[in-house]
Amino acid sequence: MREAVRSGRLAGGTRLPATRVLAADLGVARGTVAEAYAQLAQEGWLTSRVGSGTRVTATEAAVMVPPPKLRLPSAHGRRLRYQLLAGYPDVSAFPRARWLAAARKALAAAPSQALGYGDPRGRGELRVALAAYLARVRGVRASPDQIVVCTGSTQGLALVSQVLRERGVTSIGVEEYSHPVLIRAVTSAGLTALTLSVDDDGAAVGSAGDADAMLLTPAHQFPLGPVLSPQRRAEAVRWAARTGALIIEDDYDGEFRHDRRPVGALQALAPEHVIYAGTASKALAPGLRLGWLVLPEPIVEAVAEAKSAADLHTGSLEQLTLAEFIRSGAYDRHIRRSRLDYRRRRDELVEAFARYIPAVHVTGIAAGFHAVATLPPDQDEQEAVGRAAARDVAVEGLGSYAIGHHSRGPALVIGYASPPGHAYTTALTRLCEAIASPPAPP
Amino acid sequence: MREAVRSGRLAGGTRLPATRVLAADLGVARGTVAEAYAQLAQEGWLTSRVGSGTRVTATEAAVMVPPPKLRLPSAHGRRLRYQLLAGYPDVSAFPRARWLAAARKALAAAPSQALGYGDPRGRGELRVALAAYLARVRGVRASPDQIVVCTGSTQGLALVSQVLRERGVTSIGVEEYSHPVLIRAVTSAGLTALTLSVDDDGAAVGSAGDADAMLLTPAHQFPLGPVLSPQRRAEAVRWAARTGALIIEDDYDGEFRHDRRPVGALQALAPEHVIYAGTASKALAPGLRLGWLVLPEPIVEAVAEAKSAADLHTGSLEQLTLAEFIRSGAYDRHIRRSRLDYRRRRDELVEAFARYIPAVHVTGIAAGFHAVATLPPDQDEQEAVGRAAARDVAVEGLGSYAIGHHSRGPALVIGYASPPGHAYTTALTRLCEAIASPPAPP
Repeated sequence: MREAVRSGRLAGGTRLPATRVLAADLGVARGTVAEAYAQLAQEGWLTSRVGSGTRVTATEAAVMVPPPKLRLPSAHGRRLRYQLLAGYPDVSAFPRARWLAAARKALAAAPSQALGYGDPRGRGELRVALAAYLARVRGVRASPDQIVVCTGSTQGLALVSQVLRERGVTSIGVEEYSHPVLIRAVTSAGLTALTLSVDDDGAAVGSAGDADAMLLTPAHQFPLGPVLSPQRRAEAVRWAARTGALIIEDDYDGEFRHDRRPVGALQALAPEHVIYAGTASKALAPGLRLGWLVLPEPIVEAVAEAKSAADLHTGSLEQLTLAEFIRSGAYDRHIRRSRLDYRRRRDELVEAFARYIPAVHVTGIAAGFHAVATLPPDQDEQEAVGRAAARDVAVEGLGSYAIGHHSRGPALVIGYASPPGHAYTTALTRLCEAIASPPAPP
Repeated sequence: MREAVRSGRLAGGTRLPATRVLAADLGVARGTVAEAYAQLAQEGWLTSRVGSGTRVTATEAAVMVPPPKLRLPSAHGRRLRYQLLAGYPDVSAFPRARWLAAARKALAAAPSQALGYGDPRGRGELRVALAAYLARVRGVRASPDQIVVCTGSTQGLALVSQVLRERGVTSIGVEEYSHPVLIRAVTSAGLTALTLSVDDDGAAVGSAGDADAMLLTPAHQFPLGPVLSPQRRAEAVRWAARTGALIIEDDYDGEFRHDRRPVGALQALAPEHVIYAGTASKALAPGLRLGWLVLPEPIVEAVAEAKSAADLHTGSLEQLTLAEFIRSGAYDRHIRRSRLDYRRRRDELVEAFARYIPAVHVTGIAAGFHAVATLPPDQDEQEAVGRAAARDVAVEGLGSYAIGHHSRGPALVIGYASPPGHAYTTALTRLCEAIASPPAPP
C-alpha cells in the first residue's frame, strides 16, 4: 500500500475499504487489517476520520515537514522538581522489559566477532534495519552502506562538521533560533555560523548569503515549531544543486507529528545533497546515546574515517539491541504510544493556557513535545523563568536559543514530555501561575 | 590485608597462615579464604608457591609495572581464517549470560533519569565502581569525581590530546613502536609526536627532548613488551614535576600479568602528573566501547567539556551494566579465567616455537596476550607476513608499529588471544611453518 501511494497508483483522497471488508477479501483477521491501517496512519500514508472512513492522505510529491532537540538545563534548572525543558522525552515510559528482551535475543544471535572491533559505520544489522525504517516512516532514501551509526546525533553533527571543514567549508547557515548544543558542534569544528531568519514557512533558506552549507530542522523547526514549507524545501534543494553545497537535516523528532499532514524528510528530495541526521534520543531515550547519519555517497568514507578517529565505532551491543527492537516492531509501538501521550499532554497544555492565561499565545504545537508560549510584551522573559523556578518549575526563555541577537518578544520554550504523568498537571498549573503573576517587586 | 600490605604492616615475604588455619581462626569456610587468597594473588599482593605456601609479595614501594593495545587489521588480514593480531582478546569467551544478568539487575535498579541526558563524565555508579576497582587492582589513586567514562580509550586519548593542545601543548613523546590508532588520536588533535626509544627497561623517558607531554604504556610496552623499570618511572615522574608536563599512561592490559611481580600503575606515583587511561576492550570485549580516564583534578573540567562537545556522554545502560558487573565480582572472575587461558596459550606458543623454530626468539611474554618473535636477520618481515597469509594466518610485522623508522631487525607481533580455543594449535602450527619455510621464489 505504501508503494501504491508513493507511486501514485493510490491517489490522495482515495477511500479505502472498511477493515472488515478488506479482512474478508484477504482472508486475514480484522485486527490485522486494523493494525496495518493504524501503522500506515501513524506514518502519515493514511488519514482516518470518524464518519468518513480511511483515506489515502493527500500529499504534494514527497514534500512534507519536521520537529525539536536536546536542552542541557542549567545546573540550577536541574535541581528543580518540575522539568519543563525542551528536548527531553518521557524517559519514565522507556520500555525496559522489551529493551532487555531485545538485548537478550540480539546477544543470543550475535556472532562472537560482533563483540570485537568493528566497522566504523556501525553494525550491519542496525544499518539494514534503519535503512528500511527510515524509508518507511520518514521517506528517507538510503542504502545501509550510506549510514554511519553514532553515539547520538550530536556526535554525528560534530563529525560531519569536521569533514566539511576539512573539505574547505568555512561557513554554515543555521536557524536564528537553534539548539546551542548543535551550534557548539558546528563552531567547535571551526565553521562560522551564519543565521537564517525563521518565519511561518520555516527557515528562510535564501537568507544564508554566501554560506557554504546549511543546517536545518525541516520537520519541526527547533525551537519555534514551523515546518519548512514545500516552496522553501524546493528552494533549499535548488540552492544546494546550484552551489554544490550540502544541507544537514536534523530530524530530531520526525516521528512525532500530531496535527498536520505527514511531513517527510527533506533528504528524500535530494539524497545527493542532504545529510540526514536522526536519533533514538527523542523516540526512545537520550541515555542510549544512539544516533545515525544518512550520507551522500561521496562523503561516506570521510565521515566513517572521522568516526573511527573519534572512537573507532559505537558500542555493538546496543546497536544489535536497537536493530532487534526495530525489527520486532517494538520501536514503532513505543513511538505510537509516546505520540498519543504527548498529544494528550499538548492538549492539556493548550487548554490550561486558554483557561488561565488566555493572553498567552501557544505555537509550535503541531509536532514533537515542546511548544512556544509568547508572553505579554511587558513581561521580561528571564523574570518569568525566575518566577517559574521560584515555583520549582524549570523552563527556558526563548532567548536561550537565540544564536545571535534575541530579536523577538518575550517567550518561553516549554517541553511537556518529561514530567512523569502524575506530576504533569501540577507542573502546568505552577507554570501558568508563574506567567500570570505580576513581577516581584525589585 | 591489602591495606596491611600497602601500609607495610605486612612486610614483603611474610608467610601467611594456611587457608584451613585462617578459616578456623576467622570462623569462615576454607573455600572463602582460598578464594580471597586467589584474588589477592591475582592482584599481585600475594604469591603462592607449591611447598612454601602463600607469602606477601615483595614490592618496592608502589613501584610496579604495565601491558598492550588494539590493532585494526588490514582489510586483507580480516578475511583470513586464523587471526593472530595483537590487541584482540578472546571475544568468544565473553560472559554473555552474566552480562545480561548484570544488565537486567542494573536496569531494574536505575532511576528513570538515568535514561535521560547525563553527566558528561559518566554515571556515578560506574565511576564509584571504577575508583574502587582501579585502586584495588592497579593501585590507581582516584576519586570518582576525577574519572571520565569514554567510549573506549581511543576516544579518551583523543579528548585528552585535544585538551592538551588547547592548553598550549604542541609536542608529545611517544614510544618508538606504538599502536597506530593511538598515534592517530594524538596527531589528529594537532600534536607532534616525538619518538622515545624503547629498551629492556621500557621507554627511555629522558629521550623525549623538549616534548611537552608523554604517552607511555608503562605496564607492558606495546608492542615490544618490557615493563617500565622503577628507575625510569621515577625519572618520568621527576621530569613531569620539574616541567609541569603531564604523562598519559595507557594501561590497556594492566590486569594480565603472567610472570613477574605485580606491576602497578605509574599514576600511583604521581596522581597530579599522570592521566591514567583504562579500557574494558582487553579485559572484556572491544565491542562494548567502554574506557575511562583518571585525571589530575585541574583538567577534569576541560576534559568533561570536550567529552560533552564530542558526544554529550557515553551510553548509560552499558555504564550501569558494567558498574553492576564490577560490583558483583563478575569482572574479576572473568579476568581471572581469561588470564589463565592466555597464560596457557602463551606457554603453548613458546613451546611450539622452541620445538619447531628454535632460532626464533620470543619476547614480551610476561604479560598480556601478544608476543614479539624476532626472525632470523636474513628474513624479510613482510615476506613472512605474506607466507603466513598464504596459510590463512593474519599476523603483523613489527614495522607496522614503527612510528618513525623501523630500526630493528625483522620481527612479527603475534596476538595469541583471538583464535577460538579449538583453532589455536592449528593457527600456531601454520604460523611456525610460515616462518620456517624458505621465501617463495620471485
